[in-house]
Amino acid sequence: MKKHNFSAGPSILPQPVIEQSAQGVLNINNSNLSLIEISHRSKDFVDIMDNATSLALELLNLKNKGYKALFLQGGASMQFLMTAYNLLENKAGYINTGAWSSKALKEAKNFGDAIEVASSKDANFNYIPKNYEVDSNLDYLHITTNNTIFGTQFHDIPDVETNLICDMSSDIFSRQIDFSKFSLIYAGAQKNMGPAGTTLVVVKESILGKVSRTIPSMLDYKTHIDKDSMFNTPPVFAVYTSMLTLEWLKENGGISNIEKKNIEKANLLYDAIDNNELFNGFARKEDRSLMNVTFNLKNQEHKNNFDKLCLEANINGVNGHRSVGGYRASIYNALSIDSIKVLIEVMNELKRTI
Amino acid sequence: MKKHNFSAGPSILPQPVIEQSAQGVLNINNSNLSLIEISHRSKDFVDIMDNATSLALELLNLKNKGYKALFLQGGASMQFLMTAYNLLENKAGYINTGAWSSKALKEAKNFGDAIEVASSKDANFNYIPKNYEVDSNLDYLHITTNNTIFGTQFHDIPDVETNLICDMSSDIFSRQIDFSKFSLIYAGAQKNMGPAGTTLVVVKESILGKVSRTIPSMLDYKTHIDKDSMFNTPPVFAVYTSMLTLEWLKENGGISNIEKKNIEKANLLYDAIDNNELFNGFARKEDRSLMNVTFNLKNQEHKNNFDKLCLEANINGVNGHRSVGGYRASIYNALSIDSIKVLIEVMNELKRTI
Repeated sequence: MKKHNFSAGPSILPQPVIEQSAQGVLNINNSNLSLIEISHRSKDFVDIMDNATSLALELLNLKNKGYKALFLQGGASMQFLMTAYNLLENKAGYINTGAWSSKALKEAKNFGDAIEVASSKDANFNYIPKNYEVDSNLDYLHITTNNTIFGTQFHDIPDVETNLICDMSSDIFSRQIDFSKFSLIYAGAQKNMGPAGTTLVVVKESILGKVSRTIPSMLDYKTHIDKDSMFNTPPVFAVYTSMLTLEWLKENGGISNIEKKNIEKANLLYDAIDNNELFNGFARKEDRSLMNVTFNLKNQEHKNNFDKLCLEANINGVNGHRSVGGYRASIYNALSIDSIKVLIEVMNELKRTI
Repeated sequence: MKKHNFSAGPSILPQPVIEQSAQGVLNINNSNLSLIEISHRSKDFVDIMDNATSLALELLNLKNKGYKALFLQGGASMQFLMTAYNLLENKAGYINTGAWSSKALKEAKNFGDAIEVASSKDANFNYIPKNYEVDSNLDYLHITTNNTIFGTQFHDIPDVETNLICDMSSDIFSRQIDFSKFSLIYAGAQKNMGPAGTTLVVVKESILGKVSRTIPSMLDYKTHIDKDSMFNTPPVFAVYTSMLTLEWLKENGGISNIEKKNIEKANLLYDAIDNNELFNGFARKEDRSLMNVTFNLKNQEHKNNFDKLCLEANINGVNGHRSVGGYRASIYNALSIDSIKVLIEVMNELKRTI
């Protein structure tokens, strides 16, 4: 019996995707060869890469708008430095909403003047900063749309006169946004898109080639654009499984449909937290994430009991990150509403038993 | 029926590994969770990473000798720049034995004075340069032990007074070498180790920390050493499948045993080429690779006929690289001697039919 998988990432993927992915490892397209044994220059794999990049742009409604989709390696952590390497000439601004945006800012400082435009560190990142000013002379403003650890999310995307750059690792493909507000979006695959091992980069081509430094080939977005993400051997399995997940999303009504389900799931769970006197939500209500629901027991005496009930209910991965403590339920696209209901039932059961 | 898979990379893997790998995608360690859905901080995955790095050092006979094994992302192409970023302070030397070492040299030039110590470009890289002098003041000498495209291989590893750095992507784990001659070895997984998507780096810790430049976190070997290859989310599937392949290699007698089989396979095939008046070997005999056997038809009239016979015999992936033309049979660890015999039979059949 499958578990109710609330893992923060790598995290739950649609069960049909898991099964197709395993089948591809055994035998891809009835070729009598494994997906992982064929040349990345073979028609079988070139079609997979083309399909994956095309689906990414289509689902984000960015086709024919000057954007290119790339599947790279190294995770968001590699993008922290690549964005600055490719785009930071004079000065860049960062909104600091937690551990990941702090790291992005730190890496950018290797390449030039990178400043913190606003921060919510004063309250352990339990909110999204608002009412800050953005200098229009910045090379770019960098935000992290969803903060996996703290359970906060930008519900309003800032309007800025410079390039808006975004780490969307934990909420890409989960909700409708005007994605054309961004000049560059990057996202590690291992939340809503696929397995760990590839990173989607969606970049507006016109913003590139403006910095004066020399960029090593592998770190230069232009290299990968010129070679359609095939400058060197791509992470074949991760791209294939991401393609399957994007196909699943399209077949299930795309982002607008999954967003409705995500809102329904999040509302159910947040209501259960707010209506249960044993628990506190961690993030400020107006900035709560639709993807990562962070909450704490008011009284730690109940911890062992709650953990035991979760285990008995076949619930996996609800421990909070060490910097927040408590609990975190990650409720990504592939998580069913049934899993949400099981978790809520356990929270209510705890209340009944004390 | 499985094909006889001579693909240059991604390439054949042991069939039991393919099957275990697919099973892990469905359900890892009977946890009722997929390998690609669990946290990389879970015990299941931490054990996989520990086992993979430990097996790599054990098989290379580098345990307790000051080396660390890392599973990184980005392929050998990322290592072209990382080696220079971390190690090039004044001057580095490169032996140019083909397309890949040329690229390594090109990327190093972004970081300092990188020189070509010797080259076989004068004969389209069909041999390994010998009798060159290596300045002992170099920060390092870089070689490519096996040249996948041209089918050449270093049979004698140079004795040098500086750090020896090596791209071993296409012959690691295939033959006995005194691996402690190298200060750093890197290898993309997708030949003898696993699927595309991870790169093994084996580095002597004492050579690091000697350059004066600042290195971004993700490009700094020390970052990954300090975090046991878990600075950020690793490419979970590629590491798992590499671990399975290394286990398979150990269970089958390790490198010394596979080397015997590889020599037997290569000798059979090279003898067949040399004894068939329709074909020419491409590489000089003394520098022939045990992994990539390059050969050409003397008369292109027979090409269609030979290609047809290969297809009928269920042979995959023997087309040569465009820069050499002709044919290339990649005969990595997992390829059986039976596949070699089928290819030889097809070559003999061609001779009989004309």
